[in-house]
Amino acid sequence: MAVNFTDIEEAHGRIAHLIAKTPLLNSPRLDAIAGRRLWLKAEPLQITGSFKFRGACSAISTLSDEARSRGVIAYSSGNHAQGIALAATLFKTRATIVMPHDAPANKVANTRAYGADVVHYERGVESREDIGADLAKKHGLTLIKPYDDPAVIAGQGTVGLELSDQIAELGLSVSAVLCCCGGGGLSAGIATAMAATHPDVTLYTVEPEGFDDTARSLSLGKRVANETEQGSICDAIVTPSPGELTFPILKALAGGGYAVSDTQVMRAMRYAFDTLKLVTEPGGAVALAAALFAQDLPPSDDLLVIISGGNVDEAMFTKALTIS
Amino acid sequence: MAVNFTDIEEAHGRIAHLIAKTPLLNSPRLDAIAGRRLWLKAEPLQITGSFKFRGACSAISTLSDEARSRGVIAYSSGNHAQGIALAATLFKTRATIVMPHDAPANKVANTRAYGADVVHYERGVESREDIGADLAKKHGLTLIKPYDDPAVIAGQGTVGLELSDQIAELGLSVSAVLCCCGGGGLSAGIATAMAATHPDVTLYTVEPEGFDDTARSLSLGKRVANETEQGSICDAIVTPSPGELTFPILKALAGGGYAVSDTQVMRAMRYAFDTLKLVTEPGGAVALAAALFAQDLPPSDDLLVIISGGNVDEAMFTKALTIS
Repeated sequence: MAVNFTDIEEAHGRIAHLIAKTPLLNSPRLDAIAGRRLWLKAEPLQITGSFKFRGACSAISTLSDEARSRGVIAYSSGNHAQGIALAATLFKTRATIVMPHDAPANKVANTRAYGADVVHYERGVESREDIGADLAKKHGLTLIKPYDDPAVIAGQGTVGLELSDQIAELGLSVSAVLCCCGGGGLSAGIATAMAATHPDVTLYTVEPEGFDDTARSLSLGKRVANETEQGSICDAIVTPSPGELTFPILKALAGGGYAVSDTQVMRAMRYAFDTLKLVTEPGGAVALAAALFAQDLPPSDDLLVIISGGNVDEAMFTKALTIS
Repeated sequence: MAVNFTDIEEAHGRIAHLIAKTPLLNSPRLDAIAGRRLWLKAEPLQITGSFKFRGACSAISTLSDEARSRGVIAYSSGNHAQGIALAATLFKTRATIVMPHDAPANKVANTRAYGADVVHYERGVESREDIGADLAKKHGLTLIKPYDDPAVIAGQGTVGLELSDQIAELGLSVSAVLCCCGGGGLSAGIATAMAATHPDVTLYTVEPEGFDDTARSLSLGKRVANETEQGSICDAIVTPSPGELTFPILKALAGGGYAVSDTQVMRAMRYAFDTLKLVTEPGGAVALAAALFAQDLPPSDDLLVIISGGNVDEAMFTKALTIS
């Protein structure tokens, strides 16, 4: 496997002073809806608003002084961009983020506010990979991929390390964790940590309906792709297919995958607002949606649920608040 | 004084297994706006969505078995009601909550969902005190006041106890804490905890403009009343005047008071959404508003800010998200 538990512990040692140890929230009102106790790992409260900051710090912290003196590059218009931007600033290197020219203004502004240079490309005309490769070559930048990077997976796995402590502290009776899944970095990291510390706890992935490449890949035992990447409100977790490094880990450790509808996701966002007082983005709320609304959930007394991020704009959030 | 530090430690011993230890959040983007590091105690993440659950658990936990067998009563349409309702359920007693007949439906529903009986009165025609006194006498119920009760103040003081640990854990360089203030239970409790554990940290109250009875009372050295209780969006923290038990504590320990406008409060709510991913109610966001926008703030390197609650309806929250 690309990552083992020692890698996660070492990543934690490198980044613990920078990241927030996020709380495991509980709400009696949500429990009543779910019919059991839900414990919600609140990564919207992570610095930069999502778990991506963990992997970004982990990856950049492994770079040599010489590589840091040249800088890093990433392609993203979302959470990975913001995580890399701030992590680069904190590790005193320079980040270049390649974003489509029509990326939302607030995401561009946030990424710049965290200290990164933003380079635009014209979606459909230019290739971000080509632009990135040119810049990387010209300036000697290190590319940091969003999930197919062992140091990134190990960084996301620190969520699992914290969960492991929290399960013990709270004395939870738990055998399952539901986790949103895009490329699989977070799921693979958490599954690796659980296998080492709580082998009785199985991870299940959750994706948007129609974009459940991981669930289908787990069923088939091989990586299959989504038919399209367009059309989900959960943009943050729609990827072409499971990662090359992440899928073998999930194939070995995950119990299977669930899929939820956009309406279920928005209802979950509204419940998170109302009962947890937490701002969630659509892609960050899929596991909560599954915990509340999915059929055939694992029979765990307490259920762990990963809420992965809260970087949502006012229009989308307001729309979720009006869902019935 | 009505409450000392030992009372707070004892309250903590009685309720620690029921309450959430809420995180102290930080956001580099908020720091950039404030021009220094802000550390935000996130009580919206407390069970029932506000700090009031602490005082409610503390007060009910002191009751004799015989008093618990009869039940408790409270007047409130808001956070105190929800806190008392759930605390009563957890301590296996029965809560009756006296609410105006026109209280928002969701607050009535939440209070009932936590297990309380709701009794309505007609605002402007009937006196809630008379109705409550009648019910209390008839059924032998114990009245739990929202702030002028030593056990309630001690319960709210557990916020200060947690802050004290968090200041030490994070190694903060802090000399001031900003705290929203209604009747003063939370402020008095935190000030008492700080005086015992971090005497170099001074508490300052924050209230809505036009409803700054505590700030004016602190200036004058005696309790003075608000001219009206109507017209603020910060309904949760508008009270007639500082409490009889809470004011002597604040007079002895607080450094003074700030006042913020409704617009500043809504802008703070929007920043909390955008940077902290935290849902705040207007009364819960006044101290953040002061930290971001008030003049003549204390010259503390790090600044502690109490965000006290997040029980806000969709309409008010959506309004705050559209403020410029």
